Amino acid sequence: MSATTSREVRLRARPRGLPTLDDFEIAETPMPEPREGEALVRTIYMSVDPYMRGRMTGVRSYVAPFEVGEPLSGGAVGQVVESRAPELAPGDLVLSQLGWREFAAAPARALERIDPGPAPLAAHLGILGMPGFTAWYGMREIGRPRSGETVFVSAASGAVGSLAGQLATRWGARVLGSVGTEDKAAHVRDELGFDGAFCYRTTPPREALAALAPDGIDVYFDNVGGEHLEAALHHLRDFGRIVACGMISRYNDAAPAPGPSNLFLVVTRRLLLQGFIITDHWGRRGEFLAEVAPLVARGELRWRETVAEGIEAAPGALLKLFAGKNLGKMLVRLAPDPTR
Amino acid sequence: MSATTSREVRLRARPRGLPTLDDFEIAETPMPEPREGEALVRTIYMSVDPYMRGRMTGVRSYVAPFEVGEPLSGGAVGQVVESRAPELAPGDLVLSQLGWREFAAAPARALERIDPGPAPLAAHLGILGMPGFTAWYGMREIGRPRSGETVFVSAASGAVGSLAGQLATRWGARVLGSVGTEDKAAHVRDELGFDGAFCYRTTPPREALAALAPDGIDVYFDNVGGEHLEAALHHLRDFGRIVACGMISRYNDAAPAPGPSNLFLVVTRRLLLQGFIITDHWGRRGEFLAEVAPLVARGELRWRETVAEGIEAAPGALLKLFAGKNLGKMLVRLAPDPTR
Repeated sequence: MSATTSREVRLRARPRGLPTLDDFEIAETPMPEPREGEALVRTIYMSVDPYMRGRMTGVRSYVAPFEVGEPLSGGAVGQVVESRAPELAPGDLVLSQLGWREFAAAPARALERIDPGPAPLAAHLGILGMPGFTAWYGMREIGRPRSGETVFVSAASGAVGSLAGQLATRWGARVLGSVGTEDKAAHVRDELGFDGAFCYRTTPPREALAALAPDGIDVYFDNVGGEHLEAALHHLRDFGRIVACGMISRYNDAAPAPGPSNLFLVVTRRLLLQGFIITDHWGRRGEFLAEVAPLVARGELRWRETVAEGIEAAPGALLKLFAGKNLGKMLVRLAPDPTR
Repeated sequence: MSATTSREVRLRARPRGLPTLDDFEIAETPMPEPREGEALVRTIYMSVDPYMRGRMTGVRSYVAPFEVGEPLSGGAVGQVVESRAPELAPGDLVLSQLGWREFAAAPARALERIDPGPAPLAAHLGILGMPGFTAWYGMREIGRPRSGETVFVSAASGAVGSLAGQLATRWGARVLGSVGTEDKAAHVRDELGFDGAFCYRTTPPREALAALAPDGIDVYFDNVGGEHLEAALHHLRDFGRIVACGMISRYNDAAPAPGPSNLFLVVTRRLLLQGFIITDHWGRRGEFLAEVAPLVARGELRWRETVAEGIEAAPGALLKLFAGKNLGKMLVRLAPDPTR
């Protein structure tokens, strides 16, 4: 180790509405020093996820808010550079919540050693990581598509939506997706194997679904909320299920926006709307990996990554997520990937 | 039988917004004549229920719409006056969907013979009928209150709400109710044994719940929708359940009204919102009666009825329901109750 300093991204101000680069600052710190039982880790990839917007607001929720003046945190893959913990050795690859900083010292229990195996290292933050697990759990436990049913996934080219749709396809459902550009629609259809896709900026979801699913939909995997949710309610068939995973269209609202005007359909059509947070279900992670990792290894699932370079790019990467400038999992690479 | 004519209530026009008496007409018909396998039934009590508003609109839903110029239908208790079916004899008391008419001829399979037993005859349309079954199913299968949890029931003095709350109380929950007058609030607290109640016309639900349930609620049994649903979402704790039974506040909307602005709480608090229609669950009716009928027989559950007299009063009785002029089950008595 020759570097004597590290850099981290701190929250400078709590945004109202859409965050701007001014809400973040890059700060230089002395190189962290691991104490007994800790390791010094260099971040290779850090994850940028929509849920982080909620943490920028100072509201207590299922995950602690980011604090002004403090470094942000989030999923990351890193490499141990120095260890004072017997279970870790320099060179080990680890998964942690130590994103948004170049180096961090952390207790061994906060570092999960990973074997990248046949999957690329970055996949541990995407299809095999929290977003993939989220897609699998929500579709398997809440959506529960049966063979022949029609499934609609919003943000279908994103890290969660792309796996949610591919899994539903594998389980025998007809799968439709909405995305924000025509290019993404082509990707979802041609590469991910969805049965149909549309760009919600050119065709309103309610119209698009009328054309793509004239007999209605059975499952809606909601990553978006707002107009998408209202359209899905309109088209859901009796006993349909809504997987309430995220509502990215709402995250930057400065004031509360009205909900769907047709929510009473939940009663007349006997719908289920179920929210979930994947960290509640960590005990099921082995089951997820047992099903999905072999499919990844065999090349039977596809995914994309949009990778920004360097810690200076991290705040912008988060903003790009809300502008839909990513395709697939949004990552920032803070150091060279030693496995590539 | 000396009467040679019968009267029935017909839908004259489909209402926009709140129905008026002009949307109905009372028509006289020749006395129906039962054919082979049918019986002639005289209606004693007919049920008036909020869901009937939906049937006045010409929209296909879980139950067929009423047709303009045709008699309405709905739950009723009657007595066989003439039978051409071997399984029914004059004097038999029967439950049917032949409400809104004084006499009707119907096949035996559409007439369920009832033994009023220890319960008053009218109870078969209320606490032991469809509203009671609805309350039981929704609370038992969707709300699932655990001992010590806090349950909130809207329209708490109504036919469904009053049993939903009493059951939750018996199962060990702390139960709060909202109603439309201070008198009803007193009734719900003092006679039905709720732990708290408020009048939503004087105290907004969100404020009232803040005072009555400072630690939040675990179950919301929704009969009302609108502002109540938004308030319940605000106060629901993690892993809370919303029993989506009805949304009477919305039934007379001429145009769609915005939904709750805080629906994203479904995700962050991992809430479940589940709609249901009791007729899907008719197979569970024996289980319901096995649990609730003995409690009724022993006087351990309480209920009220608001009874209008004569078929001319039936349209007005339905309108009173939307004005909250009833206490408990709303009924119309078309003939003397032979058991009283």
